[in-house]
Amino acid sequence: MEFDLSRAIQVLERTPPTVRSLLAGIDDSWSRATEGPETFSPFDVVGHLIDGEETDWIPRARIILAQGPNLRFEPYDRFRHKQRNAGRSLDSLLGEFAELRGQNLALLRSWNVTDQQLDLPGEHPSLGPVTLRQLLAAWVVHDLGHIAQVARVMAKQYSDQVGPWTPFMPVLTDHLTPRS
Amino acid sequence: MEFDLSRAIQVLERTPPTVRSLLAGIDDSWSRATEGPETFSPFDVVGHLIDGEETDWIPRARIILAQGPNLRFEPYDRFRHKQRNAGRSLDSLLGEFAELRGQNLALLRSWNVTDQQLDLPGEHPSLGPVTLRQLLAAWVVHDLGHIAQVARVMAKQYSDQVGPWTPFMPVLTDHLTPRS
Repeated sequence: MEFDLSRAIQVLERTPPTVRSLLAGIDDSWSRATEGPETFSPFDVVGHLIDGEETDWIPRARIILAQGPNLRFEPYDRFRHKQRNAGRSLDSLLGEFAELRGQNLALLRSWNVTDQQLDLPGEHPSLGPVTLRQLLAAWVVHDLGHIAQVARVMAKQYSDQVGPWTPFMPVLTDHLTPRS
Repeated sequence: MEFDLSRAIQVLERTPPTVRSLLAGIDDSWSRATEGPETFSPFDVVGHLIDGEETDWIPRARIILAQGPNLRFEPYDRFRHKQRNAGRSLDSLLGEFAELRGQNLALLRSWNVTDQQLDLPGEHPSLGPVTLRQLLAAWVVHDLGHIAQVARVMAKQYSDQVGPWTPFMPVLTDHLTPRS
Protein backbone atom coordinates (compact mmCIF):
# COMPACT_ATOMS: atom_id res chain seq x y z
CA MET A 1 0.00 0.00 0.00
CA GLU A 2 1.26 3.49 -0.83
CA PHE A 3 1.50 5.87 2.13
CA ASP A 4 -1.48 8.21 2.42
CA LEU A 5 -1.63 10.64 5.33
CA SER A 6 -5.39 10.47 5.89
CA ARG A 7 -5.35 6.67 5.85
CA ALA A 8 -2.37 6.63 8.23
CA ILE A 9 -4.31 8.88 10.60
CA GLN A 10 -7.24 6.43 10.44
CA VAL A 11 -5.02 3.92 12.22
CA LEU A 12 -3.30 6.39 14.56
CA GLU A 13 -6.62 7.72 15.87
CA ARG A 14 -7.92 4.19 16.51
CA THR A 15 -5.05 3.06 18.73
CA PRO A 16 -6.14 4.77 21.99
CA PRO A 17 -9.72 3.41 21.91
CA THR A 18 -8.40 -0.01 20.88
CA VAL A 19 -5.99 -0.35 23.80
CA ARG A 20 -8.61 1.11 26.10
CA SER A 21 -11.21 -1.43 24.94
CA LEU A 22 -8.75 -4.26 25.46
CA LEU A 23 -7.29 -3.18 28.80
CA ALA A 24 -9.43 -0.72 30.79
CA GLY A 25 -10.57 -2.28 34.05
CA ILE A 26 -8.95 -5.64 33.38
CA ASP A 27 -7.34 -7.64 36.20
CA ASP A 28 -3.67 -6.92 36.95
CA SER A 29 -2.92 -10.59 36.25
CA TRP A 30 -3.49 -9.70 32.58
CA SER A 31 -2.20 -6.12 32.42
CA ARG A 32 0.99 -6.72 34.42
CA ALA A 33 1.88 -10.03 32.76
CA THR A 34 5.00 -10.28 30.59
CA GLU A 35 6.78 -12.72 28.26
CA GLY A 36 9.70 -12.97 30.66
CA PRO A 37 12.36 -10.76 32.27
CA GLU A 38 13.04 -7.42 30.56
CA THR A 39 9.92 -7.70 28.37
CA PHE A 40 6.97 -5.31 28.34
CA SER A 41 3.65 -5.98 30.05
CA PRO A 42 0.48 -4.43 28.55
CA PHE A 43 0.87 -1.72 31.23
CA ASP A 44 4.43 -1.07 30.03
CA VAL A 45 3.27 -0.90 26.42
CA VAL A 46 0.80 1.90 27.22
CA GLY A 47 3.61 3.76 29.02
CA HIS A 48 5.88 3.22 26.01
CA LEU A 49 3.18 4.57 23.67
CA ILE A 50 2.92 7.68 25.88
CA ASP A 51 6.70 8.12 25.68
CA GLY A 52 6.34 8.00 21.90
CA GLU A 53 3.81 10.84 21.98
CA GLU A 54 6.03 12.98 24.20
CA THR A 55 9.50 12.29 22.83
CA ASP A 56 9.42 10.48 19.51
CA TRP A 57 7.06 10.87 16.55
CA ILE A 58 5.84 14.46 16.64
CA PRO A 59 9.11 15.91 18.04
CA ARG A 60 10.95 14.20 15.18
CA ALA A 61 8.41 15.37 12.59
CA ARG A 62 8.99 18.92 13.86
CA ILE A 63 12.75 18.56 13.33
CA ILE A 64 12.18 17.38 9.76
CA LEU A 65 9.66 20.10 8.90
CA ALA A 66 11.83 22.86 10.39
CA GLN A 67 14.75 21.84 8.10
CA GLY A 68 17.17 23.63 10.42
CA PRO A 69 20.94 23.12 10.48
CA ASN A 70 20.68 20.00 12.68
CA LEU A 71 18.34 17.30 11.34
CA ARG A 72 19.46 14.68 13.85
CA PHE A 73 16.76 13.22 16.14
CA GLU A 74 17.26 12.73 19.89
CA PRO A 75 17.80 9.06 20.73
CA TYR A 76 14.65 7.40 22.04
CA ASP A 77 14.63 5.89 25.54
CA ARG A 78 12.64 2.65 25.42
CA PHE A 79 12.55 2.48 29.22
CA ARG A 80 11.66 6.08 30.14
CA HIS A 81 8.17 4.92 31.16
CA LYS A 82 9.47 2.57 33.85
CA GLN A 83 10.34 5.33 36.31
CA ARG A 84 7.80 7.83 34.98
CA ASN A 85 4.80 5.61 35.63
CA ALA A 86 5.73 3.83 38.85
CA GLY A 87 2.64 4.08 41.04
CA ARG A 88 0.32 5.14 38.22
CA SER A 89 -2.87 3.23 37.46
CA LEU A 90 -3.40 1.65 34.06
CA ASP A 91 -6.66 3.53 33.58
CA SER A 92 -4.94 6.88 34.16
CA LEU A 93 -2.28 5.97 31.59
CA LEU A 94 -4.95 4.99 29.07
CA GLY A 95 -6.58 8.38 29.55
CA GLU A 96 -3.28 10.21 29.24
CA PHE A 97 -2.36 8.34 26.07
CA ALA A 98 -5.71 9.19 24.45
CA GLU A 99 -5.30 12.85 25.33
CA LEU A 100 -1.72 13.12 24.06
CA ARG A 101 -2.51 11.25 20.86
CA GLY A 102 -5.53 13.47 20.24
CA GLN A 103 -3.40 16.60 20.65
CA ASN A 104 -0.67 15.24 18.40
CA LEU A 105 -3.07 14.27 15.63
CA ALA A 106 -4.75 17.68 15.80
CA LEU A 107 -1.30 19.22 15.39
CA LEU A 108 -0.37 16.90 12.52
CA ARG A 109 -3.63 17.72 10.72
CA SER A 110 -3.07 21.45 11.28
CA TRP A 111 0.25 21.29 9.44
CA ASN A 112 -1.48 20.32 6.14
CA VAL A 113 1.64 18.38 5.14
CA THR A 114 2.20 18.28 1.37
CA ASP A 115 3.56 15.42 -0.72
CA GLN A 116 6.78 17.39 -1.16
CA GLN A 117 7.13 17.74 2.60
CA LEU A 118 6.68 13.99 3.04
CA ASP A 119 9.95 13.60 1.10
CA LEU A 120 11.90 15.90 3.44
CA PRO A 121 14.79 14.24 5.30
CA GLY A 122 15.75 13.88 8.92
CA GLU A 123 18.56 11.93 10.49
CA HIS A 124 17.86 9.01 12.79
CA PRO A 125 20.63 8.64 15.40
CA SER A 126 21.27 4.99 14.50
CA LEU A 127 19.39 4.35 11.22
CA GLY A 128 20.71 7.38 9.29
CA PRO A 129 18.67 9.38 6.76
CA VAL A 130 14.90 8.92 6.86
CA THR A 131 12.04 10.88 5.30
CA LEU A 132 8.98 12.32 6.99
CA ARG A 133 6.92 9.75 5.05
CA GLN A 134 8.96 6.90 6.53
CA LEU A 135 8.68 8.40 10.02
CA LEU A 136 4.89 8.64 9.83
CA ALA A 137 4.57 5.14 8.33
CA ALA A 138 6.79 3.83 11.14
CA TRP A 139 4.48 5.50 13.68
CA VAL A 140 1.54 3.52 12.27
CA VAL A 141 3.45 0.24 12.20
CA HIS A 142 4.79 0.87 15.71
CA ASP A 143 1.22 1.25 17.03
CA LEU A 144 0.03 -1.93 15.33
CA GLY A 145 3.08 -3.89 16.45
CA HIS A 146 2.40 -2.95 20.06
CA ILE A 147 -1.30 -3.84 19.79
CA ALA A 148 -0.21 -7.25 18.50
CA GLN A 149 2.30 -7.47 21.35
CA VAL A 150 -0.33 -6.76 24.03
CA ALA A 151 -2.58 -9.51 22.62
CA ARG A 152 0.36 -11.93 22.38
CA VAL A 153 1.58 -11.28 25.93
CA MET A 154 -1.92 -11.84 27.29
CA ALA A 155 -2.42 -15.01 25.21
CA LYS A 156 0.83 -16.51 26.49
CA GLN A 157 -0.45 -16.42 30.07
CA TYR A 158 -2.65 -19.39 29.05
CA SER A 159 0.16 -21.33 27.35
CA ASP A 160 -0.19 -24.13 29.91
CA GLN A 161 -4.00 -24.08 29.90
CA VAL A 162 -5.00 -24.97 26.33
CA GLY A 163 -3.67 -28.55 26.32
CA PRO A 164 -3.63 -30.12 22.85
CA TRP A 165 -4.73 -26.86 21.16
CA THR A 166 -1.20 -25.41 21.33
CA PRO A 167 -0.21 -26.30 17.73
CA PHE A 168 -3.42 -24.61 16.50
CA MET A 169 -2.56 -21.40 18.38
CA PRO A 170 0.49 -19.86 16.70
CA VAL A 171 0.29 -16.75 18.91
CA LEU A 172 1.50 -18.93 21.81
CA THR A 173 4.75 -19.79 20.06
CA ASP A 174 5.47 -16.45 18.41
CA HIS A 175 8.57 -14.70 19.73
CA LEU A 176 9.79 -17.58 21.87
CA THR A 177 12.76 -15.29 22.31
CA PRO A 178 10.82 -12.04 22.76
CA ARG A 179 11.99 -9.31 20.42
CA SER A 180 9.83 -6.34 21.27
CA MET B 1 -1.51 -18.23 35.02
CA GLU B 2 -4.10 -20.70 36.31
CA PHE B 3 -7.41 -20.72 34.45
CA ASP B 4 -10.11 -18.69 36.19
CA LEU B 5 -13.52 -18.38 34.54
CA SER B 6 -14.21 -14.79 35.57
CA ARG B 7 -10.79 -13.66 34.37
CA ALA B 8 -11.25 -15.54 31.10
CA ILE B 9 -14.56 -13.75 30.60
CA GLN B 10 -12.78 -10.42 31.18
CA VAL B 11 -10.91 -11.05 27.94
CA LEU B 12 -13.80 -12.61 26.02
CA GLU B 13 -16.08 -9.63 26.70
CA ARG B 14 -13.40 -7.16 25.58
CA THR B 15 -12.85 -8.67 22.13
CA PRO B 16 -15.91 -7.19 20.36
CA PRO B 17 -15.25 -3.59 21.48
CA THR B 18 -11.54 -4.03 20.72
CA VAL B 19 -12.05 -5.14 17.12
CA ARG B 20 -14.76 -2.52 16.71
CA SER B 21 -12.41 0.23 17.97
CA LEU B 22 -9.70 -0.92 15.60
CA LEU B 23 -11.82 -1.50 12.49
CA ALA B 24 -15.20 0.29 12.49
CA GLY B 25 -15.35 2.84 9.68
CA ILE B 26 -11.80 2.22 8.49
CA ASP B 27 -10.92 2.30 4.80
CA ASP B 28 -11.28 -0.98 2.86
CA SER B 29 -7.59 -0.73 1.97
CA TRP B 30 -6.94 -1.68 5.62
CA SER B 31 -9.87 -3.97 6.36
CA ARG B 32 -9.64 -6.01 3.15
CA ALA B 33 -5.85 -6.30 3.12
CA THR B 34 -4.22 -9.72 3.59
CA GLU B 35 -0.79 -11.29 4.08
CA GLY B 36 -1.07 -13.06 0.72
CA PRO B 37 -3.28 -15.62 -1.05
CA GLU B 38 -5.44 -17.82 1.21
CA THR B 39 -4.80 -15.63 4.28
CA PHE B 40 -7.40 -13.74 6.29
CA SER B 41 -8.06 -10.01 5.99
CA PRO B 42 -9.33 -8.15 9.08
CA PHE B 43 -12.81 -8.48 7.51
CA ASP B 44 -12.31 -12.25 7.26
CA VAL B 45 -11.15 -12.42 10.88
CA VAL B 46 -14.39 -10.83 12.10
CA GLY B 47 -16.35 -13.34 10.01
CA HIS B 48 -14.24 -16.17 11.45
CA LEU B 49 -14.93 -14.93 14.99
CA ILE B 50 -18.67 -14.95 14.21
CA ASP B 51 -18.36 -18.54 12.96
CA GLY B 52 -16.73 -19.39 16.28
CA GLU B 53 -19.73 -17.98 18.17
CA GLU B 54 -22.21 -19.92 16.04
CA THR B 55 -20.45 -23.25 15.54
CA ASP B 56 -17.46 -23.69 17.83
CA TRP B 57 -16.98 -22.65 21.44
CA ILE B 58 -20.44 -22.65 23.02
CA PRO B 59 -21.77 -25.56 20.94
CA ARG B 60 -18.74 -27.60 22.06
CA ALA B 61 -19.13 -26.52 25.69
CA ARG B 62 -22.73 -27.74 25.51
CA ILE B 63 -21.58 -31.16 24.29
CA ILE B 64 -19.14 -31.42 27.19
CA LEU B 65 -21.62 -30.28 29.82
CA ALA B 66 -24.35 -32.61 28.53
CA GLN B 67 -22.00 -35.63 28.95
CA GLY B 68 -24.17 -37.61 26.54
CA PRO B 69 -23.15 -40.81 24.74
CA ASN B 70 -21.30 -38.91 21.99
CA LEU B 71 -18.71 -36.39 23.24
CA ARG B 72 -17.22 -35.79 19.81
CA PHE B 73 -17.30 -32.19 18.51
CA GLU B 74 -18.35 -31.30 14.97
CA PRO B 75 -15.31 -30.36 12.85
CA TYR B 76 -14.90 -26.61 12.52
CA ASP B 77 -15.01 -25.00 9.08
CA ARG B 78 -12.39 -22.23 8.97
CA PHE B 79 -13.82 -20.88 5.72
CA ARG B 80 -17.57 -20.92 6.46
CA HIS B 81 -17.52 -17.10 6.66
CA LYS B 82 -16.32 -16.66 3.08
CA GLN B 83 -19.66 -17.52 1.51
CA ARG B 84 -21.77 -16.47 4.48
CA ASN B 85 -20.54 -12.88 4.48
CA ALA B 86 -20.13 -12.12 0.77
CA GLY B 87 -21.78 -8.74 0.28
CA ARG B 88 -21.95 -7.90 3.98
CA SER B 89 -20.42 -4.68 5.35
CA LEU B 90 -17.69 -4.81 7.96
CA ASP B 91 -19.71 -2.62 10.32
CA SER B 92 -22.67 -5.02 10.17
CA LEU B 93 -20.35 -7.94 10.96
CA LEU B 94 -18.86 -6.05 13.91
CA GLY B 95 -22.36 -5.49 15.27
CA GLU B 96 -23.34 -9.12 14.74
CA PHE B 97 -20.19 -10.38 16.46
CA ALA B 98 -20.81 -8.16 19.50
CA GLU B 99 -24.40 -9.38 19.75
CA LEU B 100 -23.53 -13.08 19.43
CA ARG B 101 -20.66 -12.81 21.89
CA GLY B 102 -22.88 -10.99 24.38
CA GLN B 103 -25.51 -13.74 24.15
CA ASN B 104 -22.91 -16.49 24.47
CA LEU B 105 -21.27 -14.93 27.53
CA ALA B 106 -24.67 -14.43 29.18
CA LEU B 107 -25.32 -18.12 28.58
CA LEU B 108 -21.90 -19.15 29.89
CA ARG B 109 -22.42 -17.07 33.05
CA SER B 110 -25.90 -18.54 33.53
CA TRP B 111 -24.45 -22.05 33.67
CA ASN B 112 -22.49 -21.27 36.87
CA VAL B 113 -19.84 -23.76 35.82
CA THR B 114 -18.09 -25.43 38.78
CA ASP B 115 -14.44 -26.43 39.07
CA GLN B 116 -15.49 -30.05 38.75
CA GLN B 117 -17.32 -29.30 35.50
CA LEU B 118 -14.20 -27.58 34.13
CA ASP B 119 -12.52 -31.00 34.29
CA LEU B 120 -15.23 -32.71 32.21
CA PRO B 121 -14.04 -34.19 28.90
CA GLY B 122 -15.06 -33.78 25.29
CA GLU B 123 -13.51 -35.20 22.17
CA HIS B 124 -11.99 -32.93 19.57
CA PRO B 125 -12.27 -34.46 16.07
CA SER B 126 -8.53 -34.19 15.41
CA LEU B 127 -6.91 -33.35 18.79
CA GLY B 128 -8.59 -36.08 20.84
CA PRO B 129 -9.66 -35.69 24.48
CA VAL B 130 -9.91 -32.14 25.82
CA THR B 131 -11.49 -30.69 28.96
CA LEU B 132 -13.98 -27.86 29.26
CA ARG B 133 -11.22 -25.83 30.94
CA GLN B 134 -8.94 -26.30 27.92
CA LEU B 135 -11.79 -25.40 25.55
CA LEU B 136 -12.53 -22.15 27.37
CA ALA B 137 -8.83 -21.25 27.65
CA ALA B 138 -8.46 -21.93 23.92
CA TRP B 139 -11.39 -19.57 23.24
CA VAL B 140 -9.50 -16.77 25.05
CA VAL B 141 -6.22 -17.49 23.26
CA HIS B 142 -8.03 -17.76 19.92
CA ASP B 143 -9.51 -14.26 20.40
CA LEU B 144 -6.15 -12.76 21.33
CA GLY B 145 -4.37 -14.51 18.48
CA HIS B 146 -6.81 -13.04 15.99
CA ILE B 147 -6.51 -9.54 17.47
CA ALA B 148 -2.73 -9.87 17.02
CA GLN B 149 -3.32 -11.13 13.48
CA VAL B 150 -5.50 -8.15 12.52
CA ALA B 151 -2.83 -5.73 13.78
CA ARG B 152 -0.07 -7.67 12.00
CA VAL B 153 -1.94 -7.84 8.67
CA MET B 154 -2.57 -4.10 8.79
CA ALA B 155 1.05 -3.34 9.75
CA LYS B 156 2.39 -5.36 6.84
CA GLN B 157 0.61 -3.10 4.35
CA TYR B 158 3.33 -0.54 5.18
CA SER B 159 6.23 -2.99 4.85
CA ASP B 160 7.61 -0.99 1.93
CA GLN B 161 6.96 2.41 3.53
CA VAL B 162 9.07 2.45 6.69
CA GLY B 163 12.49 2.36 4.99
CA PRO B 164 15.34 1.72 7.44
CA TRP B 165 12.95 1.15 10.37
CA THR B 166 12.16 -2.42 9.23
CA PRO B 167 14.62 -4.17 11.61
CA PHE B 168 13.09 -2.21 14.53
CA MET B 169 9.57 -3.39 13.59
CA PRO B 170 9.39 -7.15 14.25
CA VAL B 171 5.66 -7.23 13.44
CA LEU B 172 6.61 -6.72 9.77
CA THR B 173 8.63 -9.90 9.64
CA ASP B 174 6.43 -12.12 11.83
CA HIS B 175 4.83 -15.03 9.98
CA LEU B 176 6.73 -14.52 6.73
CA THR B 177 4.99 -17.75 5.85
CA PRO B 178 1.56 -16.88 7.29
CA ARG B 179 0.29 -19.54 9.65
CA SER B 180 -3.09 -18.26 10.72
